[in-house]
Parts: sequence; structure tokens; C-alpha cells
Amino acid sequence: MRTVNAEPFFTCDTPFEEADIILFGAPFDSTTSNRPGTRFGPAAIRQESYGLEQYSPYQDRHMTEKKILDVGNVDLPIGVSRPMLDTLYEQTKDVLDAGKLPFMLGGEHLVTLGAFEAIVEKYPDVHIIHFDAHTDMREEFFGAELSHATVLRKCYDFVGDGRIFQFGIRSGEKHEFQFAEDGHVFTQKFNFATLNDVIEKLQGKPVYFTVDLDVMDPSVFPGTGTPEPGGVTFMELLQSVILVCQKCNVIGMDVVELSPHYDPSHASSAVAAKVVREALLAL
Amino acid sequence: MRTVNAEPFFTCDTPFEEADIILFGAPFDSTTSNRPGTRFGPAAIRQESYGLEQYSPYQDRHMTEKKILDVGNVDLPIGVSRPMLDTLYEQTKDVLDAGKLPFMLGGEHLVTLGAFEAIVEKYPDVHIIHFDAHTDMREEFFGAELSHATVLRKCYDFVGDGRIFQFGIRSGEKHEFQFAEDGHVFTQKFNFATLNDVIEKLQGKPVYFTVDLDVMDPSVFPGTGTPEPGGVTFMELLQSVILVCQKCNVIGMDVVELSPHYDPSHASSAVAAKVVREALLAL
Amino acid sequence: MRTVNAEPFFTCDTPFEEADIILFGAPFDSTTSNRPGTRFGPAAIRQESYGLEQYSPYQDRHMTEKKILDVGNVDLPIGVSRPMLDTLYEQTKDVLDAGKLPFMLGGEHLVTLGAFEAIVEKYPDVHIIHFDAHTDMREEFFGAELSHATVLRKCYDFVGDGRIFQFGIRSGEKHEFQFAEDGHVFTQKFNFATLNDVIEKLQGKPVYFTVDLDVMDPSVFPGTGTPEPGGVTFMELLQSVILVCQKCNVIGMDVVELSPHYDPSHASSAVAAKVVREALLAL
Amino acid sequence: MRTVNAEPFFTCDTPFEEADIILFGAPFDSTTSNRPGTRFGPAAIRQESYGLEQYSPYQDRHMTEKKILDVGNVDLPIGVSRPMLDTLYEQTKDVLDAGKLPFMLGGEHLVTLGAFEAIVEKYPDVHIIHFDAHTDMREEFFGAELSHATVLRKCYDFVGDGRIFQFGIRSGEKHEFQFAEDGHVFTQKFNFATLNDVIEKLQGKPVYFTVDLDVMDPSVFPGTGTPEPGGVTFMELLQSVILVCQKCNVIGMDVVELSPHYDPSHASSAVAAKVVREALLAL
Amino acid sequence: MRTVNAEPFFTCDTPFEEADIILFGAPFDSTTSNRPGTRFGPAAIRQESYGLEQYSPYQDRHMTEKKILDVGNVDLPIGVSRPMLDTLYEQTKDVLDAGKLPFMLGGEHLVTLGAFEAIVEKYPDVHIIHFDAHTDMREEFFGAELSHATVLRKCYDFVGDGRIFQFGIRSGEKHEFQFAEDGHVFTQKFNFATLNDVIEKLQGKPVYFTVDLDVMDPSVFPGTGTPEPGGVTFMELLQSVILVCQKCNVIGMDVVELSPHYDPSHASSAVAAKVVREALLAL
Amino acid sequence: MRTVNAEPFFTCDTPFEEADIILFGAPFDSTTSNRPGTRFGPAAIRQESYGLEQYSPYQDRHMTEKKILDVGNVDLPIGVSRPMLDTLYEQTKDVLDAGKLPFMLGGEHLVTLGAFEAIVEKYPDVHIIHFDAHTDMREEFFGAELSHATVLRKCYDFVGDGRIFQFGIRSGEKHEFQFAEDGHVFTQKFNFATLNDVIEKLQGKPVYFTVDLDVMDPSVFPGTGTPEPGGVTFMELLQSVILVCQKCNVIGMDVVELSPHYDPSHASSAVAAKVVREALLAL
Repeated sequence: MRTVNAEPFFTCDTPFEEADIILFGAPFDSTTSNRPGTRFGPAAIRQESYGLEQYSPYQDRHMTEKKILDVGNVDLPIGVSRPMLDTLYEQTKDVLDAGKLPFMLGGEHLVTLGAFEAIVEKYPDVHIIHFDAHTDMREEFFGAELSHATVLRKCYDFVGDGRIFQFGIRSGEKHEFQFAEDGHVFTQKFNFATLNDVIEKLQGKPVYFTVDLDVMDPSVFPGTGTPEPGGVTFMELLQSVILVCQKCNVIGMDVVELSPHYDPSHASSAVAAKVVREALLAL
Repeated sequence: MRTVNAEPFFTCDTPFEEADIILFGAPFDSTTSNRPGTRFGPAAIRQESYGLEQYSPYQDRHMTEKKILDVGNVDLPIGVSRPMLDTLYEQTKDVLDAGKLPFMLGGEHLVTLGAFEAIVEKYPDVHIIHFDAHTDMREEFFGAELSHATVLRKCYDFVGDGRIFQFGIRSGEKHEFQFAEDGHVFTQKFNFATLNDVIEKLQGKPVYFTVDLDVMDPSVFPGTGTPEPGGVTFMELLQSVILVCQKCNVIGMDVVELSPHYDPSHASSAVAAKVVREALLAL
Repeated sequence: MRTVNAEPFFTCDTPFEEADIILFGAPFDSTTSNRPGTRFGPAAIRQESYGLEQYSPYQDRHMTEKKILDVGNVDLPIGVSRPMLDTLYEQTKDVLDAGKLPFMLGGEHLVTLGAFEAIVEKYPDVHIIHFDAHTDMREEFFGAELSHATVLRKCYDFVGDGRIFQFGIRSGEKHEFQFAEDGHVFTQKFNFATLNDVIEKLQGKPVYFTVDLDVMDPSVFPGTGTPEPGGVTFMELLQSVILVCQKCNVIGMDVVELSPHYDPSHASSAVAAKVVREALLAL
Repeated sequence: MRTVNAEPFFTCDTPFEEADIILFGAPFDSTTSNRPGTRFGPAAIRQESYGLEQYSPYQDRHMTEKKILDVGNVDLPIGVSRPMLDTLYEQTKDVLDAGKLPFMLGGEHLVTLGAFEAIVEKYPDVHIIHFDAHTDMREEFFGAELSHATVLRKCYDFVGDGRIFQFGIRSGEKHEFQFAEDGHVFTQKFNFATLNDVIEKLQGKPVYFTVDLDVMDPSVFPGTGTPEPGGVTFMELLQSVILVCQKCNVIGMDVVELSPHYDPSHASSAVAAKVVREALLAL
Repeated sequence: MRTVNAEPFFTCDTPFEEADIILFGAPFDSTTSNRPGTRFGPAAIRQESYGLEQYSPYQDRHMTEKKILDVGNVDLPIGVSRPMLDTLYEQTKDVLDAGKLPFMLGGEHLVTLGAFEAIVEKYPDVHIIHFDAHTDMREEFFGAELSHATVLRKCYDFVGDGRIFQFGIRSGEKHEFQFAEDGHVFTQKFNFATLNDVIEKLQGKPVYFTVDLDVMDPSVFPGTGTPEPGGVTFMELLQSVILVCQKCNVIGMDVVELSPHYDPSHASSAVAAKVVREALLAL
Repeated sequence: MRTVNAEPFFTCDTPFEEADIILFGAPFDSTTSNRPGTRFGPAAIRQESYGLEQYSPYQDRHMTEKKILDVGNVDLPIGVSRPMLDTLYEQTKDVLDAGKLPFMLGGEHLVTLGAFEAIVEKYPDVHIIHFDAHTDMREEFFGAELSHATVLRKCYDFVGDGRIFQFGIRSGEKHEFQFAEDGHVFTQKFNFATLNDVIEKLQGKPVYFTVDLDVMDPSVFPGTGTPEPGGVTFMELLQSVILVCQKCNVIGMDVVELSPHYDPSHASSAVAAKVVREALLAL
């Protein structure tokens, strides 16, 4: 397991052998098409976690009840996507081989693919719950097949029809929305209206849960490369994240797309850190 | 028509002869009383438009279906209001004379007057739908008759009672609110509650539509000179803009008061660009 | 009364003898545990007040109807909490002795204790209404007994059970929430659901009203040291502040925790200034 | 004398009758052609002065030795240049009539003209020492005759050839430099090389001293609307300012063009405040 | 030639056929190892150019004397280095084939390689003058052979010993400095001390001139991804750039590494724009 | 030894037993009188160190030649100065008892006193070399005896006349400068002119070396609470730091007063990190 030392997410220092969840950062943003900077996301989430309480009044749970280890940032290549994905694949495989749950902090959304390649190898019947403003279903983007805008399509290529469930989507090309209407993936536009139904349907199935934080409205979460107005509130996201983590068989998770340099108040980092805290408590 | 070359709003490069809508910027903020900077608004809206998709899932329409030309910023005098208004009058007149719809990007709200002087000349029976946090109904402001705070009053002087319909208003002097209560203009305080009734009433009439983006709450739109807490959400504005553009006979429009230097996350620019995209698609 | 000359909150220049309300700033932040800077809060609120109108369409009242004097910032020691509190105690006592209502602008929340020590001396049966994201009920914090995180507990030590009513609380240690469940204080988590009942109950009692602005969501109020996602909206706070100020026997008040350097759009300062305007109009 | 109350430059609270120097702010920037914001300059200089010591080790003098009154900002019209200049003319005239020295804080450079109109009325033989990056010798600029870029030319129109001495100039149109080469004004390009000679020459003459802070390099003074690389250092400016103030018969002075919103470290405000302190001590 | 429409560098709108110099932007930063954002460099340089004068008092020349066309930004792939370089190679080749001089605005330093591949094809005996804080002589960097830190080494692989002359270098690995000491390239550490000798030596040779703006001290040029303290002043750079452009047979040039989002005062953009103006005037 | 885990200064991970130098952070700023935020200094220096090379071309030395351990930040109380100092005293004593050299990263300058109390206990004949813009020789400041503005006076109280040597001083009260003229301490105003003489004089004596980074000019180092124009350049500081570290018997050292939130370009953090690198290499 290749990692770079870093201040861990608060309280997450359980010894590796005893830990149930392994947190790691994926500081990569080379394919970002608008404003780069998500490489600084994992560090910002960790730093801001020290402003949070260890106790959650939402779930009446306490971080010290959980056995989590934050191993720091994975040491990633810069400017080359395939080797980066291979490194994350190996990192995730190591975690899975040790019987633990991988929880990745992005970075741009492309990093999901590296983790997912290890996940699908172990869980061939895995389903994906995907929170995002964007479909991420392109086949190519600005000259690159591997891109934050193609990442879910690349995951689709592994699992095929009926396995991907998207929520909060409000931006994409027409053919991407058509792809959902044609039944290849399930896309809930704008909000989480059908989340309960989907959770019901996925009972007993292994679920990979990927949260692109830009699913939230830019008023709540301005610190991201491409703010997309019209998103969900913090409480809507929080409740939905808790729901998925508690009700589904989540076997891997990531939280991506915080770009802290566009967040001078640190409010977006606080939002990201609180989402991570609540997800960790709910898993 | 005097223009300065500039990167156009995305996709808006139809040749002039074929275009239905002419977009132009009015980079003026000399009468701004609080924090200046709206002169940078048109450029920021154009730049941020490249982070948007050309397809709208709200309206199921695509920018390439529209015939629009963005001719860039009008070359305006600085620090002198009357010559600035004359320049915008001529610009708008040129657009109208060519049988096209003028769509202006501010700049401070005073620029509306320049465009409106050409509008009212061609459409003497024009009505105004005005979205704003502020009444803008003063007769004089900080020593100036021509000001962002007097602009709707100057428009009123052209058209008289019963022609101006304001929505979202939450700030003004008492006598400005009294002016509405006395029946000279219609003022819906705080929100869009009566918008449907007004649209109904204005069927068949030519409508000039002026959107001061500070009608939104500062959480949604912090990038403006005088943030006025208590405003509408992005979705409330979006739906109301689409409604007016689809249901009314809009013969001219402007979107004003983005001040991008107070918006380090660029979220306000993204909001403004998306409002413009949706308005253009709905017109 | 020790004051430093400063630009007053707009319109608040009634001569001392005639004034009903005395506004003063408490620029202290030495115990802030996360990001300091609330010392700049009072100046930012004053400066931003000049962007507001004197008339409130929410209450149909005008600032010139009120007799208020802003005496500027109290000249406070830096880095030593007890002498700072003593100075604020004396300032507040002077105001009370003159038969006027003290209205303090923070600064960090610890400043409330200094004012409250004078309040409780004059009004031994005082009750506290406390709006906040945090319980502030610790007994010690980062090695200090006097801290923004212990301030309500220190107030509790003066008045005992049944006197403190908290609203909007969403962050604290488990034992702090337990303290409320054990009946020592009343804590309404997350919102203002029970505010009307509490106001009813406190009729006829003297009330000290302390508003920590971080009770609002960071989307509305990013300019604070520790943004805590999941808070109330501006309109929810505004209505609740007006309710308390109009319906209760408020004998002293403070508004704290604006940290303007983390608010590049000045929207948080505008929010704070508007809350102060509405409270002053409602008192 | 019309003034708005404001926190004074530190220590400058001598009663009007006893004061030798009257400091006032001119918060105007309506003709700024690039980035506006100098209207916030006077307040920033005052605020930052409290971070300075009252004692100068450069001159071995102490602010309390001087009799100075800061009367705050003049209440100026917005967006209309001629009435603004009239107001500053009257303010300066009042100061001169009372036998005191006017010291104005800008604001953009155009404000100099208002003060100068009163100066030249009282001192018809006045000479001008002008520190600046720009010639400011245009006859018209962006459609306006009254502009920060024409201000010295307008002063020239009052006094004619041989009265204006510019230093540090590194930007202008060719014809502006030609104007100097033709002998109408004296222009020392880039630095202060000939300052001693000019001071020698001006012995016994009344001198108006106008300091555009952008004469400094943007590394030293980034907080200005149009940073012009290649300027002088802080120490070069400081020594030259002290020299002029000590050796010439300065009968009026201004310091202009600080734009604090482009100075997140406040270093430019500190530079401006220190220049003002040293000038006041040297006068 | 593939270009995206954009506001041109001021005055640079000569028709292609008549132009001597073709300016184009290379908005790429995918291999940046520290803080990304140089993709926004070309747009910032263009925008800031409008704050400059067309006349240079340093060279007594005027921009309108030159025949230059700014064709905008090349439309580059994102996150994939080799296709990006191929695109720049073709762009540069098109310019050279038309008998014009290519002048590229970065972007990160890797873009130089794309242009240089076309240059060396046409001028096999080309020499490189390289201003930079960093050696850029690594063979691999963070897992990538194509990187801003390897770019000069990749150029070296084309031309071999004795062809590269570096100035201002103050950061690198020991073996990179050793590479110079072994005689493969010429490296003037810290400053331009030996520039005149090198210019003498290169008389009659074709020279490619690449200017990494971080050769300047961060006080002068903070807006770059990796500020390296201890650099040259603006005037030192300006004089050296003019010297090379006037005295050498420059057959291609680039100016790289402005990262405007880390430059809130826009001073770094102003510095970059002025360097470009002076280089264009001197060529 | 009480520390909080943190990402170490680059390469400084020698095991404690083998290390010669122990680096630790002192994140305290409670007595800061102007803009607080130096508590974030140690983390910013560490983070920025990863943008530096391990090799120094100034000294031809490499970080891997040194045996250094960065133990992270000391866990300090907030808002209470004496307990904070006691904690730093114990931390420093632990390092000294283990026979290693303590190297502290501030934080505000008051932290020096905590370290110095342990130093003077072990080395009663210690001398202090002090680089700073400010004298720091007050006896009391804003109501506090323990303050960043009194810290050197408190050190003086331990060692008496003739032991403190200050350089670069350009700000203080007159009586502080008088204190030096009376011979109690040695004060070189403005620069390092007499540094060589002092180093000569201190041969063989144990020296504590405290570097307040605001000794540099704000153009070089804007990221500090109270920028004081007129300071030294980066190269002047670098050469002087190397000189002291190489020629004196330095038995303890600190580098203080970086306030990174006022440094949006991170240039000040880069300056601080490079000063620390060069000092560590020279010790």
C-alpha cells in the first residue's frame, strides 16, 4: 500500500489490523476541464475535520465507536491517467484483500474508476449509487477517454445495463440523458425523489457509493471546479447519504470534487468533512 | 454599431443577418453607490458559459436550436452617464431596426434606461416586468438623477402609471413602497407570488423584461455590489424567468448587476450564465 | 465608559441622555479555537450598515423612529480573558445604571459573559434565549475555563436550572446534549420549532437575548470561524429574532461571531447588519 | 464643511481651531478606467494606521508633536464628476480660509483637481510636484474630459508652462511624453533622479504635492486599480516624500489611488498609511 | 490551424497574411505538480493588456508599428500530454510554414516542447535561451516523462550539448546542476550576469527564447504555481528580454507559467502583459 | 513530549534517537494585536516545503545529509498565555535534555519566551540574535504583560544587559529605541549592517536565534499580521540567516509570525519554508 504521510481525518487512527474502514486520499485533478484544484481536497477535508465534534446529534453516534484508519494520500502520478488509475486499483485491492471497506477522498471524479476496477473484480454483481450534478456518461471528453466526464460510462462498460443509479443530475448532453431514457442506467433528475425505491430494490446487493459533492447547490458548496446552480441542500444530501449507508450493503465508497482554493470561507470543506463524518458513522 | 471584440457567450455566433437575438454587454458601473465592479459582469458571464452544457434538462432544449449572435461589449464612456445611455440607446435602436431582439448584459442597473429609451420609441405601449431586491424608484441618489437607484423611476417617467410590475422587492425607502401602494406601479414584495396573475394580465402586450440578479438571496448570488439578504432561491428565479420568457411577448431583455470580483468561487457567474442560457432558450 | 471612536451603526447617533439603546462593540477573539478574526466583526457590521435602507418592509418601521446611540468599540485587553470580561461588565453596568438597554456586537461568544455578569446583577431572575449552532456548554476547552465554548455554561453557573433556552443547536459533545436532556437547560435541536411555546412561557420575565450568527447555515453566513453546515435560513432567523424582540421583555442583547475576513463578498456582514437593524427596530 | 463621521487617522484628533493640518478623505472612483475601488482607500488608510507606531525612527519624530485633525470623508456625489469637484473645492477652500493646510486622501486621482482649484485661487503662483506612474496629461479619456487620466492636464490649464514637475513616470501615450519634451512640464521618467535639483529650484515657491501611490512598483503596492510594473521601492518613495515635505513650502497635499479590495494582505494599506504618517511628520 | 475565438492581446489584429508575428495561447496545466491554474494564463495576459499603454517609454516604440496577429487559444486536449504536444507542434508548424514568427503564451512550461518540435524541424541548428527559476532538466517527474519539470531535458534530447543557455536558475536537484557543470548545457545561476557573453556567442545563430516568468522573485510575480524566492526584479528581466529580442536572431518565443488565480491584485498579470508587450516591440 | 500529529517538514523524519535537530510547531496567536492567524503558520510552512527542492544551490548541501525530526505541533492551550508558555518550556526542555537542538516554528512571537525559559536554564550565558521589524521591548501591551510585543523584554529580564542583538528594527515606541541607546541591548536599525561585527563578538558564546519573518519587506513577505513597510529583501535575510547559523554556536532557534491566510499566492509560505530549509542546512 503506497501512501504519503498526512494528518489523518480526526479520530481515524485505529491500527490497520483492527480497522474496519480504510480511508485514503486520491489527490488527482489532471483531467479537470474547468477550474482545477481538487488535488487539495483530501488535505482540506482532514484539516477541517478538527473543527467538527466527534458526536453526531443526527445519528446519536460517536466517532470513537468506529474502527477507522486514515492511511493518508496515495502517492499518485501527475498528468497521466492510466498509471494513476492503476495505483488506485492496487490501493483499493489491498484494502479489499485485507477484508476492509475502502473509503476514498477525491480528487476529481475520475479517481472513482481506479477504485471501482478493484471493486468489480471482487464483487462482479456490484451496483452503483451515484450522487452528482453531472451525468459523467460521455465516451470521450476534450480528447481524453479517461476523464471526470466519462468516469461513470467507463464503470458502465464493466457492469452493463441496470446497475447504475444516478440522483440529483441536472447537467449533461442530450444523448447522455437519452442513454438513461433508453434504460441503460437509472437517472433521477434534480433530486432524490426515488431514492427509497431504489434502496428497496437493491436490498441484498453489493453497492458501491460514489458522492460527487457538486450534487449540492453552489450556495451550499461553492468550492468545486464547475459550480452547477440548482442543486440539493445540505440536509437533503445528508439524509440521503445516511439512508444509503445505513440501508444498503455498501462495500466501498468515495466522496469527490472538493476544490478548496475556491472556498475562502472554508465552508465547503466543512460541508465535505461533515458528509464524510456522517457517512463513516452510518456505514 | 460600435463593439469591442470579445469571447462570445457560448454557441452565440450566428451571422448577424440570420440571428433572431442580439446579445451585447454594457460594462458600466460609474454610479454604483456601494461596491463597484459590475463592469466586469459581461465578460464573466461569457467566460463562465463555457462551463455549462448546451442542453437544458429544464426545458429539453438545446442552444444550437437558437439563432443568436453575441456582438461583444459596447464601447462605453466612463464616468459620464448621459453619453453612456446615448450609446446604449443607439446600440439597441440598431438591433430593433434590424428586426431583432436586444438582450443586454450589465453592468449596473442604470444601463437598462439606455436600452429602454430605444424600446419605448418603437413600442410606446411597452410594459416592464422587473425582478429586483430594490425598488430603484428614487428620483435622485447621492447627487445624481441618473443612477442605478433611480433607473426604474426614469423608465416610469416614459410610460406612466400601470406599466411597471416589480417582483422580489425587499429594500427601498418608505416613499418608494408608498409609490406602489398609491397605484403608480405594481410591487410584489419578497417573492413571485402574483407573477402568474400579472402574466395573464399582460397577454398580447409588448413586455420589456429586466432582471437584477440581486433579487436572489446572497447565499445563491453573493457576487453583487450590495447583497440584500432575504431573497429568492435559484430555482424560484429560474422558473419565473422561464415563465415570463415563454408566456409573455418579450421584445427586449436585460440581466444586470453581477460583480464578479466579489465571487471568488465563480458560483455567482455560473448562476448568471445559467439564467441567461435558460432565458435565451425560452424566448 | 471607555470607548474608541468609530463610524457608528447607521443612524445611531442619538445623544446619550436621550438614547434608549446603547450599542457597543466587543472586538475580542483570543479564545477562538478554529479560525480567529471576530475582532473585526463590529467594524464590518457598522461599515455594511451603510448599504442598508433605514426603512424595513418586514416591520414597516424606520430607524429614525428609534433612539439609539452607537458608542463605538470598547477598548479591550488582548489575550487575557478575565480583564476583558471585567471591562465589558463595567461597560454594561454603566449602560444599565443609566436606565438604557445594552446591545453588544461581538467578537467571539465569550464576550456575552462579561455583559451577562452585569445583567444578572441587576436582574437576578433573568432568563436567556440563546440562538446558536453550538451548545457552548463545556466546562473547559483547550485548557481554558473562559472560552467561547464554555460561555453559556458559565452563564448557567449564575442562574441555574430552567433559565436557559437554546435554539438551532446542531453541534456539541454528547454530554452537552445530555445536560439538556437531564433538564438543566432547554435545547431545541436544529431549528426554532418550539420558540413560540418558550416565548409564551417567558412572558413577564426579563430576558437576555444572545444571537450567535453561526446558527445560520454556512451558505447564508460563511463569514464565521467554524462554519457548521445544516443551519437555519436567513428568513427563519429574521422572523425568530423579530418575534423574541417584540414579544419578550428583552433587557439586553448581543449579536456575535461574524468573522469578516472569511467573507470576501461581504454577504455575511450584510446579513449581520440586517439582523441588527431588524432587532433594533423590533425592540 | 460637510463631513461623514469616521474613525480618524490615528492620533489626529486635535480640535479644529488648534489644528495646523486638516486631513480629509475623498472617496470617489467613478472615472476609473480599469478596476474601480479607490473609494475605499481613505477608510483603509485610517484603519491600518492603528497598526503603526506613533514614533518614526526615520525622522525621530512623534505624531503627538503635530497638531492634526482628521475630519473624515467628504460626502461626495457618485457618478457625476463636476459636482464632486465642486464639493472638494469648497472643502479645501474652507480649510485654506481657516489658515490651515489641506491634506486629502483619495480616491482616484481626479480628486486632486477639486482641491487644486481652491489652491490655485489662493496661491496663483503655485507649483506642483507630482509623483506617479502615469503622466495623467491626456485631454480626454474614454469619453470624459474629467478623468483620472486627464487630471494633471486640467491642473496645467490653470497654471501653464513650467509649473508641473513629474517624477517616476513610466506610462503614457507618446504625445504625453512629447508634451514634456516640448518643455510644457518637467517629466523625470522612471525615478527621482532629478528631485534634488527641482527642490532647489522651487525654494520659496508655494508647492502643491500630489502623490499617486502607483508610482511604487506593484510588488510594493499591488492594491491599486492599474498596477504598472517597473516602479520605485518603498524606501525610495519614503525618502523623496520626506525630502519634499521638509525642503519645500508645501501648502497642500494629497495621497491617492489605494484600492484596498485588491490587497488581501493589507500590505498596500500599510504602505499608504506609513507614507501618510511620514508626510505628516515631515510637513 | 485550430483556434478558439478570444479577446486578442491589445492591438494584435493584423490580418494573417500581413502579420509578421503570430501570437497564440496554450492553456494547458495537466502536469503541474504543485498548484495548477496556468491554463488561465493566456486569457489573463490578454485581458490585462488593455490596462497598458500602446507606447513604450523604455524602447520609444509603439505597438501599432508592429504587424502582429493574436489568433487566440489553441484548442487543446486535457489530461493527455502527447496529443496536446502534437496539437502545438502542428500550430507552430503552420505559423512557420507561413513564414511568420510563432509567439506562444502558456500554460505550464511543458507546452514549450510542442512548439520546439516544429522549430527544430525547420531550424536544426537552433539554440535555446531559457530564463527560469528551475532547471527543468529531469528525465522523469512524478511518474511522467512529459512534464513541466522535464521539458528542457526533452528539448536537449533533440539538440544535444552546447545548445541550451539557462539564466536565473535557483532550484533543481543536484544532478541537474551537475549536468550543467559537466558541460552539457550552460547554466547561469541566480541572475543574468553572463547574458551579454552568451548573446555575443550566439550571433548569427537561430535562437528559440523561452521565458518562464517564475524567474522573477515572488514579490514581483506571486501568480505562479510554485513561487521560488530569490529571483530577479522586473527591471532586470525587462532589460534582459529586450536585449535578447533585439540582439539575437529570435525565430520563436514563448512566455509561460502565469497562474492568475493566485494573483488577486492582478499585478502578476500586469507584469506578464508588460513583458509580452516589450518583447513584441523588441523583436 | 506533547505533540499533535502533522505532515512533517519535508525529509525531516529521522528517528528521534538519531536526530540532531528537533523541529516542532507552536500554533499560538492569542495575544496578536492586529490581524491574528499565525496559528496556521507551522502547517503552511510544512505544506509548502513539498514545493521546494531538497538540494540548496546556495550552500551546495542536501536535506538528506541532515538528521532532523519534525515531531509536529505542540498541543497548546488557547487564549491563556502562561500555560501555553509552560507547555513550550517543557517541550524545549525535553529536546535539550535529549541532547538535541530545538527548532520551533511559530505562531506569534510570544512563543519564543516559552522556549527561551528552557534555553536559559541550560545555558545561563546564552546570547540572543533577534531579526525583526519591531523592537518587542514593551513592558506591557494592550493590558497584557505576556504579548508578542513584550517578548524580547521578558527575555531581557532573564539575561540582562549586553546579551540581546537586534537587526532590521524599524518600528517601536521611542522609549524602546532609547532602551537600546542606553546600552541595554544592541539595536541595528533597518538592516544587517553590523551583523558581521556582532558575529565576531559572539564567537564561542551560546546563541539563541529568533527570526521574526516580518523583518522582511511586505513586498517579499505580505503574509503576516502587521506588515511593516521598509524591510530587508529575501536575499539579505537568507544570507544573514546562513551566516548566523554557520558562524555562531546556535543552540536553539525559532522562525515566527507567518500568517498564511493573508497570503493568497502562498508566496510568503514559500519564503518561510525556504528560510527554514536554509537554516536547517546551515546549522
